[in-house]
Parts: sequence; structure tokens; C-alpha cells
Amino acid sequence: MKAPGLKGYVMSISPFDHPFLSGLFGDDQIAQYFSAEEDVREMLVFETALAQAEAEHRIIPMDAAIKIEKTCSEIELDWQDLKQGTAIDGVVVPALIRQLRAKVGDEYGKYVHFGATSQDAIDTSLILRLKSLIPHLQTNLKALIKGLDELESKFGSVELMGRTRMQRALPIAASHRIRGWVSPLRAHVQALERLKPQLLQVQFGGAVGTLDKFGASGPMVRETLAQKLGLSHDTECWHTSRHELTNFSNWLAIVSGSIGKIGQDIVLMAQNEVGEVKLKGAGGSSAMPHKQNPVQGELLVTLAKFNASQTSAMHQTLMHENERSGSSWTLEWMLLPQMVMATATGLRVAAEMILNVEEICPSKP
Amino acid sequence: MKAPGLKGYVMSISPFDHPFLSGLFGDDQIAQYFSAEEDVREMLVFETALAQAEAEHRIIPMDAAIKIEKTCSEIELDWQDLKQGTAIDGVVVPALIRQLRAKVGDEYGKYVHFGATSQDAIDTSLILRLKSLIPHLQTNLKALIKGLDELESKFGSVELMGRTRMQRALPIAASHRIRGWVSPLRAHVQALERLKPQLLQVQFGGAVGTLDKFGASGPMVRETLAQKLGLSHDTECWHTSRHELTNFSNWLAIVSGSIGKIGQDIVLMAQNEVGEVKLKGAGGSSAMPHKQNPVQGELLVTLAKFNASQTSAMHQTLMHENERSGSSWTLEWMLLPQMVMATATGLRVAAEMILNVEEICPSKP
Amino acid sequence: MKAPGLKGYVMSISPFDHPFLSGLFGDDQIAQYFSAEEDVREMLVFETALAQAEAEHRIIPMDAAIKIEKTCSEIELDWQDLKQGTAIDGVVVPALIRQLRAKVGDEYGKYVHFGATSQDAIDTSLILRLKSLIPHLQTNLKALIKGLDELESKFGSVELMGRTRMQRALPIAASHRIRGWVSPLRAHVQALERLKPQLLQVQFGGAVGTLDKFGASGPMVRETLAQKLGLSHDTECWHTSRHELTNFSNWLAIVSGSIGKIGQDIVLMAQNEVGEVKLKGAGGSSAMPHKQNPVQGELLVTLAKFNASQTSAMHQTLMHENERSGSSWTLEWMLLPQMVMATATGLRVAAEMILNVEEICPSKP
Amino acid sequence: MKAPGLKGYVMSISPFDHPFLSGLFGDDQIAQYFSAEEDVREMLVFETALAQAEAEHRIIPMDAAIKIEKTCSEIELDWQDLKQGTAIDGVVVPALIRQLRAKVGDEYGKYVHFGATSQDAIDTSLILRLKSLIPHLQTNLKALIKGLDELESKFGSVELMGRTRMQRALPIAASHRIRGWVSPLRAHVQALERLKPQLLQVQFGGAVGTLDKFGASGPMVRETLAQKLGLSHDTECWHTSRHELTNFSNWLAIVSGSIGKIGQDIVLMAQNEVGEVKLKGAGGSSAMPHKQNPVQGELLVTLAKFNASQTSAMHQTLMHENERSGSSWTLEWMLLPQMVMATATGLRVAAEMILNVEEICPSKP
Repeated sequence: MKAPGLKGYVMSISPFDHPFLSGLFGDDQIAQYFSAEEDVREMLVFETALAQAEAEHRIIPMDAAIKIEKTCSEIELDWQDLKQGTAIDGVVVPALIRQLRAKVGDEYGKYVHFGATSQDAIDTSLILRLKSLIPHLQTNLKALIKGLDELESKFGSVELMGRTRMQRALPIAASHRIRGWVSPLRAHVQALERLKPQLLQVQFGGAVGTLDKFGASGPMVRETLAQKLGLSHDTECWHTSRHELTNFSNWLAIVSGSIGKIGQDIVLMAQNEVGEVKLKGAGGSSAMPHKQNPVQGELLVTLAKFNASQTSAMHQTLMHENERSGSSWTLEWMLLPQMVMATATGLRVAAEMILNVEEICPSKP
Repeated sequence: MKAPGLKGYVMSISPFDHPFLSGLFGDDQIAQYFSAEEDVREMLVFETALAQAEAEHRIIPMDAAIKIEKTCSEIELDWQDLKQGTAIDGVVVPALIRQLRAKVGDEYGKYVHFGATSQDAIDTSLILRLKSLIPHLQTNLKALIKGLDELESKFGSVELMGRTRMQRALPIAASHRIRGWVSPLRAHVQALERLKPQLLQVQFGGAVGTLDKFGASGPMVRETLAQKLGLSHDTECWHTSRHELTNFSNWLAIVSGSIGKIGQDIVLMAQNEVGEVKLKGAGGSSAMPHKQNPVQGELLVTLAKFNASQTSAMHQTLMHENERSGSSWTLEWMLLPQMVMATATGLRVAAEMILNVEEICPSKP
Repeated sequence: MKAPGLKGYVMSISPFDHPFLSGLFGDDQIAQYFSAEEDVREMLVFETALAQAEAEHRIIPMDAAIKIEKTCSEIELDWQDLKQGTAIDGVVVPALIRQLRAKVGDEYGKYVHFGATSQDAIDTSLILRLKSLIPHLQTNLKALIKGLDELESKFGSVELMGRTRMQRALPIAASHRIRGWVSPLRAHVQALERLKPQLLQVQFGGAVGTLDKFGASGPMVRETLAQKLGLSHDTECWHTSRHELTNFSNWLAIVSGSIGKIGQDIVLMAQNEVGEVKLKGAGGSSAMPHKQNPVQGELLVTLAKFNASQTSAMHQTLMHENERSGSSWTLEWMLLPQMVMATATGLRVAAEMILNVEEICPSKP
Repeated sequence: MKAPGLKGYVMSISPFDHPFLSGLFGDDQIAQYFSAEEDVREMLVFETALAQAEAEHRIIPMDAAIKIEKTCSEIELDWQDLKQGTAIDGVVVPALIRQLRAKVGDEYGKYVHFGATSQDAIDTSLILRLKSLIPHLQTNLKALIKGLDELESKFGSVELMGRTRMQRALPIAASHRIRGWVSPLRAHVQALERLKPQLLQVQFGGAVGTLDKFGASGPMVRETLAQKLGLSHDTECWHTSRHELTNFSNWLAIVSGSIGKIGQDIVLMAQNEVGEVKLKGAGGSSAMPHKQNPVQGELLVTLAKFNASQTSAMHQTLMHENERSGSSWTLEWMLLPQMVMATATGLRVAAEMILNVEEICPSKP
């Protein structure tokens, strides 16, 4: 499946996608999960698993499920139609389902998306992608921890001047400062583990969240669907209960803040007169070729401030009206992908920055 | 102990303290923990426990600890001096310790606050007060859950129109909407339990976080101090690791958001043409005495938006420079008390609002 | 008029009101405008002027206006009743008008607040107080500019190292850095002048914004009322058009940000190894009496971050529903007083900090 | 000039660029100004004008300026190199200048970018693009005003129920509500005019903002450069004075908030039981084909909340350290393009929504 670039120029509204800013901001490993293709692909995974679950519970014919699965795996989408449908409906799913039903054909088309609503497909696609990308975040977070541990091994006994309120205070070992960087990260690894079970939950509620098409067998269909997708499930859907996404966004911003602190400290240590750290690979200037700018440290501060700001908007999404809020739900789409990217980029950049530390040097007397 | 009102008028910068707005916003039960007296009282509890722990570990004389304890329990403070000291030092502790040492006297005065720093006293005072107030939040959250469960018992079978994207969709039972309100609250009760062990941790690091005055016995002193205060402890202090406070602020805003959704739904249901809920005790208008305004529902929306905004500022506090950031730490003081108050007020108002529901009425055909 | 402290302890939810934190954060000159007494006093000024304007236009008897004016100037309010009324109605005005009518008596009581709504009284009270306090902000901003100009006169020729991306770049004169601090402030003085005409506008629309009680003479009554209060007026009321308050909040945060930059630069220059500035009156530490902390510079950073965060909440208030939004309007009350205080405190502290600069010293070679 | 899509998939981090979400969020007219090509193109416009201005002031040879102009108009860039350079230097300009100098050749290459710094090129490119796109925003804002005026002409006399605090209050004419929507927009048109002179200012300061390469002729070179680019100029550069960008971002969010209020009102009016507006072209549902969702109104609310949140981050960028802050400057890049897009999309969608109003219907009795 391949979504065309629909415009005559390469867009660059987001620095994470930008032809040259992505050199600074990008993380290809994570970014792919937010491509339009991957989003739609996981919606089709949802539709396939739904049809299978419904067939197992004898709600739709097994042949319909087989046909739906095959069609989902082969379909060539009309992306321009998806865009036009989204413009009208506010969500891509009605257009996607129309295309899918047309390909499935008259006999079984009506069984596509049976009993589901747009939010079921879109939210589950997001969760499936979070499920896939979270291990990368965990791996990268652990790699950063390892890098910091190694830094401590190398330079932990160097005597630095402890600084409080931006003034020299009393001597410390470098290991004290480095452990102050790394210990929050260990806590964040555990916090993510605790978040996962609630976060990685299937979305399945139907039109108004009641699984109205299924009568008493609704919960069983949901359970089977969850099992097929490797997700957790609960006795209710979470159409209007968005707090787990907000909790996850809080985690993303907390990680950004913790590594922002590392970046800020490195920038302060790298000041010429302070000279507590030597960095290789620092950035150049168009006006002063001799300069060595601690670009990576500054970028970690930028990303931390960015994600901090976005948390307030994620919290504003909590107030869904009645059984579904178009405005709150749409707002999530504007925020969460960029927050994940900011955290992922930060983890990548922080690990590189730590590798670029050539030496931690004793503070001047 | 009694702090004087230092000005000739009663201040009202914060609606939570305001002579008449506090009728709307206040919560006396929680507010007391943010009085200046209570703050200082817990700092003195910290100084007392510290002296005792240090005496037990033979770091200071036992008689000094006894004298410090007695003085802390009796001292009459000069509040004007505390204010002036704060203006100069940026923190109240140096002035407080000067007053305390003067009362303890020449012989033992030097053992007051031995090996500690301002942040140890101030942060631990905050944590002791959070420890005291969290059970109130839990009780009020459970009371709200109970109120909603009773509402479901009474009116759960009423047929409402499920509404998605602000349009009538398909019928639901009222119980479906109410369970959508209550199930996030149950999750928040559990989330708070999970937060508590890390959050309720003693702060004790000394000047630069290394317990430099104690040599190898530092960790033991910290452990004893923590036990005396009923707090947890760790192998490092958290002078610059502020993420647990940020996680707690996230919890506060999540709760506000979840009850903001209830308030918003009640406001929508109470629209005259919709008429899905009858409220007693609604507010009057100075221009139209006949009106019944769903003031409590609106206020829950206000509080949710307020706390949502404050989360971004709490995240901005994560980037402490080096071993202590005056600017980030001070910013916490501007945010956290009001966030706790907003959540506490919201819980009180939501419980009252649910009690004010006289009837949930079937949607019009 | 004197509002009692209604509780047995002095509250301290806001640092601007706090018994000792106000040493750091407070500004008595500005704070008085946010006292409950001053708020209500200006509401009574509004009611008096309204009665007079209505009498002049023969809408109410002149004797009623005289009686209302006299009563407003003499009334002893029952503050507990105002608080209880606010708790029920969500606004203080219905209770205030009940008390006022009772004192005015049966004959003329019905002419009190005639044709007005709560929002007219509350918003106009705010605007009258902003009108009174803005000259203080202007004076203090100009004083800061003068202080910086004097600093430039004294030390402008000192050679500093220009620093970009936190690295030494090329030499500059100190005057270049100082002019970079002061030139935005000059722009802000002018921007405030441009804001004033639209901001300082009477609020008068009646129950639903249409001056329904006045027929064709509504606009004339509004014009007369505005003249009596020294405010501007327009052809519509601004019940739901809140952008001028948001623009003002933006100005407040812009000023805070600009002086936050000065504070941050001073903190960076005051680093021991950098030593570009000598400050007197710097803050002490409870653990390290030898330290001199640049508390004022740090506080300016704190206040800038605080006000930056609040702007997002002020923007959230723009979406008033229909003819009046209780939830958006109430949110303004939680934000604007503290934003004004943060800016006022910042101006005071910045001026003091600049006076505390003993010397700007050449950068090390 | 054509920037390649550098990855094997079409990215979709930002909904404004997204293959299908851009149907909802996009605005091609404005988006083009944020393409990487357009950004670099305007940097080359800056370099060309700079060379010309320097030649006119006999700072570089006229032949160098002619060669630089020709090269800038013909150059085929190596975009992969620009990306790699940005990754190292934190800005694209050093790599861009290297490519440009290589093409200009040995003789005149040294005159490329003479006396300028990266920030001069990047900031001026932004300002040139804002200058080009602002007329579109003005046109679209005026078109929306016109659409609302026409709506008032058609339906202004319809009797609606004025609603305060979400309750029926007193009757109003539809014209009253519509004028409440449109009058802020008229104010915003004027506010943008007032912002333009300061905002549309050339950036030119050289390495540390002092035009150190030019001696006394620096200001004249800046003036000539500004004239060539059709921008204003001042006696200082604005490397660290970012408040005009923040003021512009405030304007963007104010406009989003004002049209968000229109969207919210339309959504409330379109509720089935309220029925005050009939919309054509409303969105469909994948579960309930009969539904008509007021997608455009909801989207306006989403965009208003988004831009409101971003203002706090823009204010955080005000605190540049010393003569240039990498972290604050980079943060602007993450925010401003999306804020412009959110406002532009909002203007487009609001105009369409108003055209989709088939009828404003009298409120039910």
C-alpha cells in the first residue's frame, strides 16, 4: 500500500516530516507508525479481526470473514477519495468502508464493519501502532540509561562543583550529577510498564458505545476481537474515557522533561568559562566557523518545552460531550503523533549527545 | 501558631481564598493544608524529626534534639521577619532557622537544621501535607462514585437518546451514560494508590544533594528520618527529580477533566429543549429571576480547563539546572496548591451536583 | 467598607497573597485592586452611575437615583450572605443587589440595577480597576526603562563577550546587550497605549446583550453611563467578545517574558566563572551562608514561565456559548488577577534587580 | 526548485500535511509558504538582496553581487546535504551557504552571506513568507465577514431565544447573535493592520547582532537591504526580541478563538431538539448513515483549542539567552507554521460552514 504525496510540493508544516529539519528532529524508526499507510493498514487489521471474531460467534457468515480478510490484504485504495470523504465526514472511515464494501462485493459487503463505528477502527488503529512503537521507546530509553551508566563508569570520580541556584556551592563527584540524570529515567521505564495494560486496550463499542447490534453477545465479541489483536479489553468501551491517552501523553512529556534537564545541564557545563564537558560533533555557525555549539543539548530543551505545552491541550480533550465528541477527539489527532515524535527524537538525540561526551572535566578551582 | 493577615485588607488574588468567590471555589477541608501556618508547622516537624534522627545516630547530642523538639513545639514566630527573609533569600527557611536557633540558644542552636538545606525542609513540608490531604481526596472521590452509583440505581433504566458529535444517534439506557462517568473515576482511585509510594518520599540531601555532612552514615540518617515522618525514602534525594510532583499534578488534572465531562454532560442535558435532567438548587440571575442556571456543571468545566492549563507549567518545572533550580522550584509553589484546590473543589461540587439531580428524564421522541 | 477574613486562618493558596511568600511575589500597590472590597466598591460605582444615567434619560425617577447613590456610598454589606449567594448563583451580583435593594427600600428598590445584568456590573468593575492600575504598570515599566538607560550610561562601554547558543562568539559592548533588554520594553509601553481604548470599555447589555429594557434609548443610556465612568463604549456590548481581555493578557505575558529574559541573562552573567555582573543584596542559603544567590533574576524567569502558561487558558475563554458562558467567564476570574500580579511583581523586582547591579565587569579573556 | 520526499513513505505527523486528514485540516493556499522549497527560496532572495545592498555600498564588488544573484536563481540544491548539515549545525544555513559558495566559485564565493549570520537568513525568510501569506489571511477574514453579513441580511430578523449559561433567557433577533460573531472579526482585521509594520521587519545583525563586519555603514546596509525586500527596519536587529512573533501568534489564536465561538454556537444551534439552524453538507457516520454531523463547527472548536494551547509555548520562546538562544529559536519553528495553518484552515472552514447554512430557524416556543 502506498499513499501518494497529493500535492506538487513536499510539505513541511511539521519539523518531524520536514525535508531538512527532520535531520534535527526526525526519528525514522518511530515516524513510520504515523504514516497514513500504516494508520489505514491497522484499520484494515481491525476490520479483518472484527469479521473473524463475528464469524466465530456466528454473527456473520464465515465466508464473509474470509472474503473480508482477503480483500483487506489486497485492496488498492483511492486516496483522493479518502481525503474527500474525510473533508465531509470529519473521519476517514465512512469513505474507507465504502471502498472496502465495494471491493468485497454485494454478497458480503454488508458484513464489513458490522456493528462497529468509525471510532472503533480509528482508536484501535492508534492503539495497535502504539503497541508496536512502545518497545522502540523502551529500547531507546534503556540505551540512554546504559549510555549514562557508562559515562558514570568513565568519569564518575571527576570532581565537579555542585551548583545550586546557578552559583557554585560545594564539590560533588560527577557521578552524583549523572545519577541525578539517570534515576528518573529508570522510574520512567517502570511507569511505562504500569501504563501499558490499560493503554493497550481494544476500542469496540458500536454507534453509541453499547454494542447495540450484538445483544448479549457483545462482550464476547469484544473479548475475541481483543484476543485476535493482542490487546486488552474491559467491560465498557472507552469512546469517551480518554484518560489513558492523556496519561500516556503525560509520560511522554515527563520523559522529554527529564532528558531536557540533561540537555540543559550539558549546555551549562559546556559554557567556555565553565568547561566541565568536552563535546565532539558540536554544531557550526555560518558567521563564526570556529564555534562549537551544543546543538543537541539545546534541542533537548526545545523538545521538553514543546511537549510540556502540548500536555495542556491533551488534558483539554478529556471533556467529551455525551457519547462522542468530534471536537475533542479530533484534537487528539493534532497532538499525540507529534508528542510521540518529540519524545522519540529526544531519546535518540540524548543518546547521541552522551556518546559525544569526550570528557567530563574537573571544575575550575 | 497564628500567622497574621499582614495587610490592611483581605486579599483575593486567588478565588480559592476569596471572601465571596470562595463560596463557589473553596474547600475548607483541603485549603487548611495550604495555610502558611500549616506549611511552617510541618517544616518544624521536619526539623524536630531530623534532630531526633541525628541524635539517634549520635551525630548531634540527645539533649540538643530534646531542646530543639521543645522549642519547635512552643515557638512564637515573627512572621514579618519571615516575609522579609523570604524577600531576600527567595525561601523562608534561612529566616526561620535564624529564629529557631535564637530560641534554642547558644549551646544547641548550631545543631538546628544540621546538614540540611532549605529544600529539604520545604519539600518535606509539602509532602507531609500531601500525605494528610490525599485521604480527603480519596474519600471525596469515593463519595462521588457512590453518588453516581446511586444515581444509576435510581434512574439507570430511563431511556435516553445517545448523542454523538452533538447529534441524536441511537437510544441508550441512562445507566450507560452514568457508567461512562463513573468508570474513569474508579481508575483514578487506583492510580492514586499507585502514585503514593513514590510521591510521599522524604526530601533529604543537604546542600548539594550528597548529604555531605554525614559521610557514610547519610543514608541511615535519611532512613531514620523517613521512618519518623512516616514517609518513604530512596538511595538518592529528589532535589532535581521533580517528576513525581508532575505525575501527581497530572492525576489532579485528569480527575478534574473526568468530572468536567460530567459537568458538561449535565449542562447539555439540562438545556430547556433537551430536558434530560431536572436539577434543584440551580443558580439565579440578577436580570431574569425565573432562570435556573446549571452553575455547578459549568464550574466543573471551568475547573477542568484551569487544571488542564496548569499541567503545562508543571511540566516546565522539570528542567532544574544543575543541583538546584531556584526558578523551576519557585514555579511549583505557584501551581500545585491551586491545582490541588481545583481538584478538591471539583470533587465537592460534583458530589453536590449529583445530589441535586432530582430526576433523569427520558429524551423526547 | 471592610471584608472580613472569613476563616480562622490566613489563607495562602496564591503566593501573591501569602503571609511570607508575598515578600517575594507581592506588589501591594497593584494587589489592592484585586481585593474583594475594591471589586464590590466598583460594582457599586457602576450601579450608582447606571441609576444616574437612567434618571437623566428619564427612565427612572431622579429621586431613585439620588437614593441609590446615597445607599451605595453608605452600605454596610453582609459578606457572609455575598459568599452564600455566590455559591448558589455562581456570581455575587444577585445577592449584592438583594442587599442593596433592601437598603434602598420599597419605593426605589426596584430601580436598582434596572435593565442591567450581573455581567454588566462585574465586567465593568474589572475594567474600572484595570483603568486604575494600568497607570501604575506604565509608571513601573518606564521606571525600569529609566533604570536600564542609567545602567547603560554607567557601564555601556564595558567589553563583554557576545554569546550565541550559550557559547562565546565575538566581543560586544555592554550597551548592546542592555539595549537588547530595553528596546522591547519601549515597544510594550506603546502597545499598552494602543490597547487601552478598546480594553477600557463599559460593559452594558442587559439580560441577553440587547438592552431589552430600553428600546431605542438603550445606546444613549450606554453612552451616558460610559461618560460618567470615564470609559469608552461601542454599538454593541462585549458580553461574549472577550478578545480585548485576552489581548491584554497577552501584553502582560509579553512584558513578563521580556523581563524574564533580563533576569535570565543576569543569572547567566552572575555565574561565578563568568563573572560579568556583581550584584548586591543577593539571597542567602540555609546550608551555605557564603553563597550569594541571584534570587531576583531567577524569580523573573519563574514569573515569565507562569504568565506564559496562563495565556493558553485565557485563550480557552474565548469560546463563550451563545449569549453568555458561565464556564468561560468564570475561568477568566481564576486567571487575570494573577497574571496582572505576576507582571506587576516582575516589574517591581526587575527594577530592584537593576538597582542592585553594582558593576558590569569585562568578560574574561 | 524541488525538494524530494526523502523517505519511502508519505509522512503524516501533522494533520495539515496528511494524505487524507488534510482534506479536513489543509489549506493549500497558505501551506505552500511553509514548504521547504519556499523557505529556502526566500533565504536565497535574502542572500541576493544582501549582496546587492553590499555592492551598492561598495562593501563587496558589484560583479560578486551579479554572480551571486545569478547563482541563487539557478542553483540546484543537494537536499540530502542540507538535511545532514541541519542535523549537525542545528540550522540549515551553514550547509546552504557552503553549497552556494561552491557554485559561485572561488573568486566571489567569499562574498556570499558576507557579514550575515544564520539567523538573519532564516528569520528574514520567515518574515518574507508571512508578508506574502498575510494578505490571504486578510482576504479570507474579510470573506468570512462578508458571508456573515449576508447571513444577517437573509436571516437577521428571525426570532431566536437568547441563551445565557446554556439556558433559555429572553428572545433576541438572529442579527444580534450574528453581529456578536462578526464584530470581533472586524476588530481583528484592524489589529492585523496595526501589527504589520513591526512584524514585517528585516532581520540583519550579523554574528552577535552588532553588524560587526560593517563599522559605521552597518545601519545603511540594513536600510538598503530592507528596501530591496520591501520590509521595515529598525536601529537594532531583533535576534533576541521575539515579541512581535509572539504578538502575531496571539493574533492567530485570537482569530481561531473567535471563529471557534461561531463553530460552537452553530453546533449548539444544530442540536436536534434546538433546531435553530439547518446545515447542508454535514458529515456522515460509518455506523448511522442517517446522521448529519456538524463537522465543520466541531473542527472550528478543535482548531481554537489547538491554537490556544500553542500560545503558551510561543510565550516560552521569549526568553532568549544572551545574544542568541538555540533552544528558544528552534521552538518557534515547531509552533508558528502550525499556528498559521490552524488559523488559515479555520478561516476556510468557517466561510464554508456559513455558506452551508440553509436556514436559521425560529427557536421553539
